[in-house]
Amino acid sequence: MTHPVKSYAAFSATTSLAPYAFERRALCDDDVLIDILYCGVCHSDLHTARNDWGFTHTYPIVVGHEIIGRVTQVGKNAHKFKVGDLVGVGCMVDSCRECSPCLHGLEQYCEHGNTGTYGGIDRFDGTPTQGGYSTGIVVSEDFVLKVSEELDTKAVAPLLCAGITTYSPLRHWNVKAGSKVAVVGLGGLGHMAVKLAHAMGAEVTLFTRSVGKSDDTYRLGASRVVLSTDEGQMFEVANTFDLIIDTVPYTHDLKPYVLTLALDGTLVLVGLVGELEQTINTVPMIMGRRSISASVIGGIRETQEMLDFCAEHNIVPDVEMIDMQDINTAYEECKRVM
Amino acid sequence: MTHPVKSYAAFSATTSLAPYAFERRALCDDDVLIDILYCGVCHSDLHTARNDWGFTHTYPIVVGHEIIGRVTQVGKNAHKFKVGDLVGVGCMVDSCRECSPCLHGLEQYCEHGNTGTYGGIDRFDGTPTQGGYSTGIVVSEDFVLKVSEELDTKAVAPLLCAGITTYSPLRHWNVKAGSKVAVVGLGGLGHMAVKLAHAMGAEVTLFTRSVGKSDDTYRLGASRVVLSTDEGQMFEVANTFDLIIDTVPYTHDLKPYVLTLALDGTLVLVGLVGELEQTINTVPMIMGRRSISASVIGGIRETQEMLDFCAEHNIVPDVEMIDMQDINTAYEECKRVM
Repeated sequence: MTHPVKSYAAFSATTSLAPYAFERRALCDDDVLIDILYCGVCHSDLHTARNDWGFTHTYPIVVGHEIIGRVTQVGKNAHKFKVGDLVGVGCMVDSCRECSPCLHGLEQYCEHGNTGTYGGIDRFDGTPTQGGYSTGIVVSEDFVLKVSEELDTKAVAPLLCAGITTYSPLRHWNVKAGSKVAVVGLGGLGHMAVKLAHAMGAEVTLFTRSVGKSDDTYRLGASRVVLSTDEGQMFEVANTFDLIIDTVPYTHDLKPYVLTLALDGTLVLVGLVGELEQTINTVPMIMGRRSISASVIGGIRETQEMLDFCAEHNIVPDVEMIDMQDINTAYEECKRVM
Repeated sequence: MTHPVKSYAAFSATTSLAPYAFERRALCDDDVLIDILYCGVCHSDLHTARNDWGFTHTYPIVVGHEIIGRVTQVGKNAHKFKVGDLVGVGCMVDSCRECSPCLHGLEQYCEHGNTGTYGGIDRFDGTPTQGGYSTGIVVSEDFVLKVSEELDTKAVAPLLCAGITTYSPLRHWNVKAGSKVAVVGLGGLGHMAVKLAHAMGAEVTLFTRSVGKSDDTYRLGASRVVLSTDEGQMFEVANTFDLIIDTVPYTHDLKPYVLTLALDGTLVLVGLVGELEQTINTVPMIMGRRSISASVIGGIRETQEMLDFCAEHNIVPDVEMIDMQDINTAYEECKRVM
């Protein structure tokens, strides 16, 4: 028996989101049906709805990949969750589950491509996957996360994208007590990077282009704010950081930031999808074995670890709540600040 | 008592090297005096003599930083070597010895700058350092390497630059039996990278732009040659390599190579000093947590380890011998093939 849901969908790259009713698949044995309570609004949603990246092949598309809800039904072989559990679904709903990355809990790097929560092709029935701007979703329990009742439920959703996107590189590059971490940009990703790195015991610096953000930043856990347009301030932090999490979503010059990396430091791009228009210069890289890398979300195991870490440290993003019917206004606002 | 030596020096950026007699400093307590037998000719020598990088401030300058010789005198507190020992001196003759990198055996990344074998400022007497195109040199024993008598002495010299420049990243990025390593370029650095990676048990691929080099490459230890200008061949090795050692000394497009990195793979630039004119694209980096890094030579401890490794595996570079008086002809030849 399929499950009818209501949603807001993009019917083309150029039109506003509009109501759309469709059916979720009947539960497979390992599926759970989730009644969606909240869904985060991510820049990727907007880019996908508008086909900014050229990846959107099928309309209508229901975006949204920061989903919080409660389990209302479980498949006969689904044992991880029971009806009433508070759960989350992030950017993936499936993967091949057999390749080396999948077997190592790195489904985000599935060699055959993970199945996106929206804009993907359902591995079970071949239909386009549809995301969280809807009243319900059916997902294999292996791609569902447990969410603590202790956290502020309405604020948890963005952990499933912005949270894991910053948590994963912080862990992968071994951030721990005393690590020196810098964050470039203070949007959805950046402010989570500051909170998480601080909770891991790192000394956190924010690079910003607008001094006005300082107060906010200290509240989030940064101990220093550096105005990246000020050469003197940049010089003071030369050779300092073990890790820089660069969340800027548009092309920008990495050279000033690379100089602030310590020996063996790494700058990780998590926000920019596409070409860096500025070139890189190898001299500071050679002279300090500095690296530039990039990372996307995290695996399911690591996403659960991140949610548990956030519950333990009482970390949720700063959020603004909107009603679903106001999504088009919110998109205009997103577009304005991008 | 100072030590008179003969040498070939550059007297300006635009003139040929010419004979130059000067004095090496009197031995400090921890110094050794070395009678130079052989000195490698490195592209850096040429760039420095001609001030291509803008780093050459003082003429005359005696270049050469791949030095093999025998100890002829030792300072009163120099205990590591005795008269007659076969030794080497590489790209550094000193460093601050106190900063964190120095204390960790990473003198090449000394926070106060290591002292180059030529073109540096002697930390003891403030004079310009002069390199190995000379009959003798005085160096603190802490920057002198033991060289096995088992290796072909006249071929050992380039290990001190090309050898360590490729050995160090192979070790730093944990190349071991079964690792998949690719090498870009088959010059002085590239052919050493192939030999060393093969000796470490890696499966080695050479990226080349000229098919003619294949026979040579297999002899050196590569198991595969990929023509980097052939899209089909490049596609076949997509997602393959744990590490790429990129030895190309001029600006080039990294994008085709990045796609051949495996998940968590790293491309290490060891040949290019300056701007990459081509941009990088973050998509393949994000989707495989791939990194671009860079590295310079290695520390003294690691250089000794490399020399011992080469003695154990009987590895020396392929060399062509020239007499010192033919250096200007050799430079013209170097310039032609660059």
